[in-house]
Amino acid sequence: MSKSVAIIGAGPSGMAQLRAFESAQKKGQEIPEIVCFEKQDDWGGQWNYSWRTGTDRYGEPVHSSMYRNLWSNGPKEVLEFADYTFDEHFGKPISSYPPREVLWDYINGRVQQSDVKKMVRFSTVVRWVDYNEDTELFTVTVEDLRTGKTESNTFDYVVVGSGHFTFPNVPDFDGVETFPGVINHAHDFRGAESFADKDVLMIGASYSAEDIGSQAYKMGARSVTMSYRTQPMGYQWPEGIDEQPLVDHIDGSTVYFSNGVSKEFDAIILCTGYLHHYPFLPSDLALDSPNTIYPDHLYEGVVSEANNKLFYLGAQDQWLTFNMFDAQAWFVRDIILGRIELPDAATQRAHMDQWKDRFLALSGKDDDIDFQCDYVRKLIEQTDYPMFDLVEVADILKSWTHDKKRDIMGYRNAVYPSVLTGTMAAQHHTEWLDALDDSLATYLAVPESAESGATSV
Amino acid sequence: MSKSVAIIGAGPSGMAQLRAFESAQKKGQEIPEIVCFEKQDDWGGQWNYSWRTGTDRYGEPVHSSMYRNLWSNGPKEVLEFADYTFDEHFGKPISSYPPREVLWDYINGRVQQSDVKKMVRFSTVVRWVDYNEDTELFTVTVEDLRTGKTESNTFDYVVVGSGHFTFPNVPDFDGVETFPGVINHAHDFRGAESFADKDVLMIGASYSAEDIGSQAYKMGARSVTMSYRTQPMGYQWPEGIDEQPLVDHIDGSTVYFSNGVSKEFDAIILCTGYLHHYPFLPSDLALDSPNTIYPDHLYEGVVSEANNKLFYLGAQDQWLTFNMFDAQAWFVRDIILGRIELPDAATQRAHMDQWKDRFLALSGKDDDIDFQCDYVRKLIEQTDYPMFDLVEVADILKSWTHDKKRDIMGYRNAVYPSVLTGTMAAQHHTEWLDALDDSLATYLAVPESAESGATSV
Repeated sequence: MSKSVAIIGAGPSGMAQLRAFESAQKKGQEIPEIVCFEKQDDWGGQWNYSWRTGTDRYGEPVHSSMYRNLWSNGPKEVLEFADYTFDEHFGKPISSYPPREVLWDYINGRVQQSDVKKMVRFSTVVRWVDYNEDTELFTVTVEDLRTGKTESNTFDYVVVGSGHFTFPNVPDFDGVETFPGVINHAHDFRGAESFADKDVLMIGASYSAEDIGSQAYKMGARSVTMSYRTQPMGYQWPEGIDEQPLVDHIDGSTVYFSNGVSKEFDAIILCTGYLHHYPFLPSDLALDSPNTIYPDHLYEGVVSEANNKLFYLGAQDQWLTFNMFDAQAWFVRDIILGRIELPDAATQRAHMDQWKDRFLALSGKDDDIDFQCDYVRKLIEQTDYPMFDLVEVADILKSWTHDKKRDIMGYRNAVYPSVLTGTMAAQHHTEWLDALDDSLATYLAVPESAESGATSV
Repeated sequence: MSKSVAIIGAGPSGMAQLRAFESAQKKGQEIPEIVCFEKQDDWGGQWNYSWRTGTDRYGEPVHSSMYRNLWSNGPKEVLEFADYTFDEHFGKPISSYPPREVLWDYINGRVQQSDVKKMVRFSTVVRWVDYNEDTELFTVTVEDLRTGKTESNTFDYVVVGSGHFTFPNVPDFDGVETFPGVINHAHDFRGAESFADKDVLMIGASYSAEDIGSQAYKMGARSVTMSYRTQPMGYQWPEGIDEQPLVDHIDGSTVYFSNGVSKEFDAIILCTGYLHHYPFLPSDLALDSPNTIYPDHLYEGVVSEANNKLFYLGAQDQWLTFNMFDAQAWFVRDIILGRIELPDAATQRAHMDQWKDRFLALSGKDDDIDFQCDYVRKLIEQTDYPMFDLVEVADILKSWTHDKKRDIMGYRNAVYPSVLTGTMAAQHHTEWLDALDDSLATYLAVPESAESGATSV
């Protein structure tokens, strides 16, 4: 009897898993029955933007944490699919930091002309997953949100690709309950236009605070303050942006920091990270981890130690993204296809411990980058996913961190070459700080000055 | 073997169910094993205010839709517990329209000195409920959110008291995705202070729009517009509040109404109602209903037609609240205790059809009020819950609707007598429009002018 696979989520990870199986099928391999459950109406996961916050039209938590005017905060050259280049998709060089709709178009482009969309059940949320030790099958209970109908089906394998940047981590702050201004987690932030001439506070010192704080600056905030727990980001912020230590308490609209500084704010954005949260999984199968590049209990970063027929894609904090999900999806595919044999539990554990030791010895961003690039390389070496130059990718990532140190408001103007095609990215027609339209059409449009042959000043 | 009951939710409905069993136990009746699962850290349901929006600290959708400065929008005399009066709790007359913390204190007061809290498992969310036809038992799978541990247990009966004012109904509007201002559903509204000097739009023409619009006016909004689908609320709004028909589309910050009127807004609050949403129930058990005073398929408004061992409390749209939940909980209790015998399915269906026919013939608010008061009376007649004067309650409700027509900003200054004790409500020390502090302490404080014997001017 043919095996069956349930993929949970049709974001970049789930799409990678679909593509991995399709790739094998095109080479003549028989593949299992595959059903991918996606609670949104379309695929793309985080990249499927919604203006909605809180819960969606069906009462389910909104998945995407993206906002209007979000541009990639890392160079596209480090996430390029090894089997579908930017050159192939766009037919011309584009810049290194495209806005969200452009990246959605790219990931959609790879899979839209194939047949894999028929494997996806959209608007279908996974309610509960059970594993039966006797039958060695998972029972996956889902609800079709359009009809409200629930049903249960059994599968041999489950691939969790639901992501871990959806459920906000929201700490409490003394006095927060009476703060009279706008207060949202970054997950529910959709645009900074209303912050013009306002004093806004970002609580947090990671990517969300950096990016939303910069966005608020771009949209004309009177002041932007970022509050850090351990250490400031330390970028050369333009005038109007400053960093303060941890919030001690809030009284009315005044926020008191642990160094004694206080200031009134109109809005607070909680850039306090996300939870690994799998409300559809029993606790013996659910990954319990902070956001880290080495979540434990995942052999090769994907195989659940608790149940080797359960897999997680993209569970790591990510320097690489799309191409790492590919590397993982190809590896998971080959386990399911029987091309890769899993070692016994003790050997898996020893292997995880080796990586864990290396992880614990890491010191700084360059180390993290090398760690993740090595991890991806070692995965790719075990499958037929096209190898690419991961040393070059690591170098681009390291340059990126330096670009940000040099010019946090201008780093998106840098360009990098593709490690796959060698094509140098195009200088975009508008600098990020001046670009107020994040649409694909505007992004791809050739500016009038260029069409007429004039050079911009 | 003793029977067992799972109660889902420890809001006013679940608390009523706990209290109903406790009341029987105090009279010497043996009661079943009872476990109440409450996903929040405390009981009170909607009345357990949280500053949080979206998802809570554990990643679960925030339950309460209440906001800072919310005051009861109906007179407390129509919701008074027949077995625990306001006089008994507060020891003195209070006003007819208390703020939220005062009502929370009242519902908490009834149950806090009893032993029922030990039956509640707080911070525990119900993930999935299954009914096994062979064993005639429900399997209830829950997660302790503090530990992440999931477990499954079987029960003879399940009482759903999770409410239906938690999951927002959020329609789409052409152009809404690029509205640059604040946009939230009423569920995520926490206070109107930031609307001072702003132009705000409420989409909707029911209680949320009326109340949040009034709140925005109270907090100094420059203008408040309410958009209705079928007909305007038609209150005598003060200058600065107007009503417009349906939103046709949105372009930037400008909203175009179906009558051709357009206006720029700083914020939009979607007062578009709530969904019956039971993500923990299979579709054959989940109530599928709009918000209505007569949801079909509930015998006597509580017994699931699909499974007579499954009950819903408070599933109706509500003119009465706490005391209706009591009437329902006592009735459900007596079914479980075997004191009330359910008729066969056909008789149940015929009974539901009779009520449905009456419901479909209703015309206007006075009819609705009489319908619900009759319903509650007929429930109470079947149990030992103390009967109270439901004709008088209906009269108070009808007067309330007239008070609002007379003075929408001042109706909360009216006072009504208790139908249980006859005590006339106290005139509150501060008129609603001037009261900016909704705390219990401020509410109960005797104003200085009264203490000194002076009269206010």
